Parts: sequence; structure tokens; C-alpha cells
Amino acid sequence: MITSRENARVKQVCAYQSKKKERDRDGVFVAEGWRLVSEAPPEALAEVYVSASFRVRASSEEQRFLEQNAAVVTDVSDAVFAKMSAVKTPQGILAVVKRREQDAPGLRQAQPADDSGTLSSSKGPSAPVLILDGIQDSGNLGTIFRSAEAAGVSHILMSADCADIYNPKVVRATMGSIFRIPFSQTEDLPAEIRALREGPGVRVFAAMLDQQARAYHTIDMTERPVGFVIGNEANGIRAEVAEACDDRVYIPMAGKNESLNAAVSASVLLFEAARQRASCSTP
Amino acid sequence: MITSRENARVKQVCAYQSKKKERDRDGVFVAEGWRLVSEAPPEALAEVYVSASFRVRASSEEQRFLEQNAAVVTDVSDAVFAKMSAVKTPQGILAVVKRREQDAPGLRQAQPADDSGTLSSSKGPSAPVLILDGIQDSGNLGTIFRSAEAAGVSHILMSADCADIYNPKVVRATMGSIFRIPFSQTEDLPAEIRALREGPGVRVFAAMLDQQARAYHTIDMTERPVGFVIGNEANGIRAEVAEACDDRVYIPMAGKNESLNAAVSASVLLFEAARQRASCSTP
Repeated sequence: MITSRENARVKQVCAYQSKKKERDRDGVFVAEGWRLVSEAPPEALAEVYVSASFRVRASSEEQRFLEQNAAVVTDVSDAVFAKMSAVKTPQGILAVVKRREQDAPGLRQAQPADDSGTLSSSKGPSAPVLILDGIQDSGNLGTIFRSAEAAGVSHILMSADCADIYNPKVVRATMGSIFRIPFSQTEDLPAEIRALREGPGVRVFAAMLDQQARAYHTIDMTERPVGFVIGNEANGIRAEVAEACDDRVYIPMAGKNESLNAAVSASVLLFEAARQRASCSTP
Repeated sequence: MITSRENARVKQVCAYQSKKKERDRDGVFVAEGWRLVSEAPPEALAEVYVSASFRVRASSEEQRFLEQNAAVVTDVSDAVFAKMSAVKTPQGILAVVKRREQDAPGLRQAQPADDSGTLSSSKGPSAPVLILDGIQDSGNLGTIFRSAEAAGVSHILMSADCADIYNPKVVRATMGSIFRIPFSQTEDLPAEIRALREGPGVRVFAAMLDQQARAYHTIDMTERPVGFVIGNEANGIRAEVAEACDDRVYIPMAGKNESLNAAVSASVLLFEAARQRASCSTP
């Protein structure tokens, strides 16, 4: 059991928690809490740390997990775990997780991430693609991943200046969707959007209010796969990104606010696409 | 100009920012930033504080506002403003705002909050009611208000154990909707739900996954006004609250997550109601 807070591995985990550079260099991120750790693909678990308290109180399911992954599990004292943890009330388990190889979205066909969901039978080739242009808030980014999985999104494409998806706060807010939704980042979002339109033939809509924008509920989202671009919380979608899209879409709003929260906008659009696909497949 | 951080009024504003008891005792809350301050009903502005820097850089619109409200405006030094502020990078303007009298939702008919929105013509008597059972996250609560206004909600009814709507973080996240949406809190949510069902004849749905729940997109939300209950982020809706409702509704989900973010769930349901009303009113 590691009992020294000065242990080199302990310090390395702390660096992964707080420093993007360290995470990027080693191609890893930290998943903290039983739920996230247990949902990580077993082959991606590089290191698992458990506190003495966690070990003592572990349920039979948790004990089984620790036995099956014994080769990568390290026990640490509660004080050491508290140092490694990024949350206020640590559960006593965290993992250093290897990142997946990321596919380019233009190269892959939309594939359902799962086939147990109620909407899955209708996903097939028309599952939507979600495109994020400069989403900055870590809570929003995680919530968007969570919603996207639930709405049956096939791929999330992010501009390079989005918040770091591997930030511990974002990872937690995804509720495990980070392990299940294919995603990628790009330095040239307009080029990737054009490739998506040409290759898989996705119809890409920029979510923004302007004179040419169409109300989202008047669009047929079942003919062809659709993609939605959601812009930065304060500044919206960049002009060159909007120009690379097929069309513009907006959510009609009552009242005086000019916009919705970014995660809400993404969710309303994606669940409308899911609803249309479900209605479509109803006999 | 107030230049002392020990000034009694400065200390009182700090107390309003950080202490629910102080806010409740005086029936006020703090709105910070130009946008929020300018959107507050003028008659509700008890005190307005501006920093020296704000005064110097004020736009003509801001100057007009300061002149019109000169009776309640107090200038303070930048250092004093920094002490009063609850944000990292203060804009240099905040207001102490008097709360509205709150109506009981059972006593009022649904009224559109505004008639300039695209959906407003279809709101009329079928505008939905939103009911919150123990929403704890302040960001969620504010975002829910913002979405509810945009979706044309007539009233938000909250259980007494929701996060404090007058918390500065919640107020900011509402983006001003707190000034425009009628809302109320109750110690007895089941009784209020029963009153809503009987009086205005609202059909109330508990948003929860169980065997009797109906998929949200299969419900006709245009016949009668609908109400949706959104439950606590971790524990969902209390049994006695769910029992007071007409029916249960769920959002079909693909993938492995068991739930959506509370603000996302509320928004998907409310915008489906808005979509149905808009489709209905299209000739």
C-alpha cells in the first residue's frame, strides 16, 4: 500500500488530474468514482487506485472488479487518495485510462453505439452527427456528451478550441458517455464539415438565429443523416464554420432571452431528430 | 462615492450576496452585471451600485439608465465594488432588487409572459406549467428558468427544498428569466399539484422511468394545459409527489445512461409541448 503523498506515481496522478499537457503527453485521462471506473473498457484501464476505506467497504460487485483487474490495482492510504482525488468527497476509487484511437468522422459510417435503447432500432444510417464549435464550459461539454449518447448520436466532432474533453470535470459530467460515443477533434472544422457533407452525405445545419434560418421542427430529419453545429456560449458559431454548412436552423423561442444554454440547444435538436426517426419507424 | 470597504451598506450587499437569511429577511436579491440590472423591472430596483470604472466607460444607454435611476444609484470605488461583487471579473454594476409578490399557481390562469416570441400566438391557455421537486444544483435551476421562459411556460412551481432561486449564481444562470416568469414555492407540493389538476385543469405528468410511463412524444399536449414534474438530480421525484400526478412520462433514450441532466429533461419536454402547440396553430 502506498502511504506517502510524495510517491512518484501519486504525484503523476495529481499531474494528470490538473494538467492537460501531462494527460496529452501520455495519452491518458483520469476517471474517478466507482461508476465511471466500472464503465471504462477493461482494456483501457492503465492503473486503478483504491483507498483503504474503499477496499474495506467494497460491495461484492466492487470486490469482483478489483480481483479481475488485480494486475493494475494499487492500494493507497485514505490520506494519499484524498491528495489524488479531484472531488470534494472522494469515493476512494479512480483509474488512469488510456484514450481510444479517434476515427475521422468522414471515414466512418454512422454506427449505433448500443442496441438496447428504445430508439436504437430507428437509428441505423440516419443517426445524427453533432459538431461543436468552441464550446468552452466544461459542464456544458460533459452534459452535451451525456445527451448525445441518449439521443443516439453517431459521432461528436469538436473544434480544437473546445474545452478539454479529458478534463476531470468534463469526464464526470459525461456520466460515462466519453467511453461510448465516438468523437474527434480537428484544427479545421470547416474542412471536416465539407468532408462530412460529401462523404457520408450528412446534411449539416448551423444552429443560429438569422434571417435564413429554418425552424427546427419544420425540417425533415429522416431523409438523410443530419448534423448540427452548436457554437460557443458567448459568440456562437464562427462565420467560416457557418458557411461550410448546408443550412441554418433555429429553435423558436418565446420571451426575451436571445438564446438557450448550449447543452439545451443541442439536446432539443438531437431529441427532435430522435423523435422523428422513432415516429418514422412506427408501423 | 463610497470608498470604504467597511461601509455599512457595502457590508449589507455582501451579506445579501452570500447569506440566504439576509436576503429572505429583507425580501430582496442581488442582480449583477449590466444585462441583469437593465432587465430588472424599474420599480423593483431598491439600490444600484456602480464602480468608478463603470461610470467612466458607460455607454450612452448605460448613462441614460444611470440618470433615470439616479435616486437609487450609488457610486463606489473599484476596490469597494470588487468586494461587493460575486463574480471573478466584475462588470462594475449591481442592483439590490425587491422580490415580486408570488401568486399561488392554482389561483391564476396561464398567461403568456410575453407576446413577441414566435410561439406566443399558440401559447394562450395551453401554456405548460413546470414543477420542480428538489432541484439542488444552482446551475440547473437557473438554466431551467431560462429554458422555461423560451418554451413559453406560464408558471414554475417549486418544492421548498429546491436550491434558492435568489442565490446570485442561480439569478445569473436565469439570464433575466427570474424577472419574467411567474414562480412560487410550496411546502406541500402534492397538494399544489392536486389543486392545479382540479382548478385550471392542468394534466400533470411526472417525468420518470417506470413501467407505466408513456413516451413523451406519444402524448397529445395540446388538448389541455400540461404540467411536467422534474425531480431531484440524484433521487428523482418523491413517491408522494409522483402519486399526486395524472400520469408518468419518459424520454426514450439510446445508450447506457439511465437519465438526462435535469435541465435537459425539462427542456426536451417543454419544447416538445411548444412544438406541438406551434404545429397545431399552423393553418
